[in-house]
Amino acid sequence: MKQHTHRFTVRTSGKGLVAITHPVTDWVAQTGLTTGLLTIWCPHTSCSLTVQENADPTVQEDIARFFEALVPEQGGRYIHSSEGPDDMPAHLRTMLTQSGLSIPVIDGEPALGTWQGLYLFEHRRAPHRREIVLHLLGEE
Amino acid sequence: MKQHTHRFTVRTSGKGLVAITHPVTDWVAQTGLTTGLLTIWCPHTSCSLTVQENADPTVQEDIARFFEALVPEQGGRYIHSSEGPDDMPAHLRTMLTQSGLSIPVIDGEPALGTWQGLYLFEHRRAPHRREIVLHLLGEE
Amino acid sequence: MKQHTHRFTVRTSGKGLVAITHPVTDWVAQTGLTTGLLTIWCPHTSCSLTVQENADPTVQEDIARFFEALVPEQGGRYIHSSEGPDDMPAHLRTMLTQSGLSIPVIDGEPALGTWQGLYLFEHRRAPHRREIVLHLLGEE
Repeated sequence: MKQHTHRFTVRTSGKGLVAITHPVTDWVAQTGLTTGLLTIWCPHTSCSLTVQENADPTVQEDIARFFEALVPEQGGRYIHSSEGPDDMPAHLRTMLTQSGLSIPVIDGEPALGTWQGLYLFEHRRAPHRREIVLHLLGEE
Repeated sequence: MKQHTHRFTVRTSGKGLVAITHPVTDWVAQTGLTTGLLTIWCPHTSCSLTVQENADPTVQEDIARFFEALVPEQGGRYIHSSEGPDDMPAHLRTMLTQSGLSIPVIDGEPALGTWQGLYLFEHRRAPHRREIVLHLLGEE
Repeated sequence: MKQHTHRFTVRTSGKGLVAITHPVTDWVAQTGLTTGLLTIWCPHTSCSLTVQENADPTVQEDIARFFEALVPEQGGRYIHSSEGPDDMPAHLRTMLTQSGLSIPVIDGEPALGTWQGLYLFEHRRAPHRREIVLHLLGEE
């Protein structure tokens, strides 16, 4: 049994989903491990991880609209507003999605379904550099 | 340290929770590993996993009613509607629950609490065959 | 590769977040493992786990207010009400957050970001003793 860790950076350009499937699966392939457990960790409190349909881009528009309605950015709604009107909604949207994902690796690939993509979900309006931590435990 | 993987199918009959605790714990017992980490992965984007009270069936009615209100199936609400009015709500309900669960295994069983049950949460109206991927890493 | 498990109790005093970062990171340090995967499991159906900003206490007030509005405690709203008006909302708030978290351990510490804290999120009004299960797999 061996383990590997890795960190990489995702540049976001405001709110929305950024696909990270390829950098993640490429790294898994590079480790040479074929069976194991992959963990993806997002060490931030105003962006998160999600698994989502990777086919139709309008899905992402619907996601954006849904989260704007579910966790509104609204003046006076939050006590914690010193870091901007999008900061507290960002924390809440992070709580409602995932900071980490652990996925079985089988035949050298994360066991994602045909339509599943891995995404960083940026909740802040301004562009950010976001770090992703990867951990893989398994056998060749 | 050893690892095992397994896949099994769950037949759903429309929206709602389907208990998967027994097929999962039975497989863990069959592996013979007594201490380790179990990961359950749901490789779909319109059903998900959840941990929920396993005692009172009315809990499941309340869950259904809550998610219908939180993520309505409503004509004209979503841009992505080509796969039916329940498809985009299914993606959103999946995002708000889990695609994967990792649970410590102690004394040969997942460390679930007395009232915790594992469920597949089907979000589509039509019956589906859903695959579940299991991974267990541990020692005898 | 070695593994360790541990259980500890958190006393809650009604609804809200209780910080558990220190008991978790202290136990990781005691195991002597420096690289691995930490899993935190909450074996209850009316409290959950969340990762949240650890800096400004008003964040916790906003979280409380948001979840009261998202999942109201309201007479007549839920069928499952025999265990009190806060019980069904507690199950739903648990579903919308996490029962488990798996975090890479690097250099002897969970790879949390600067602002990330680990919290038990109590959803019941009455004080409770809550158990947390820890599992760590890794190398010295």
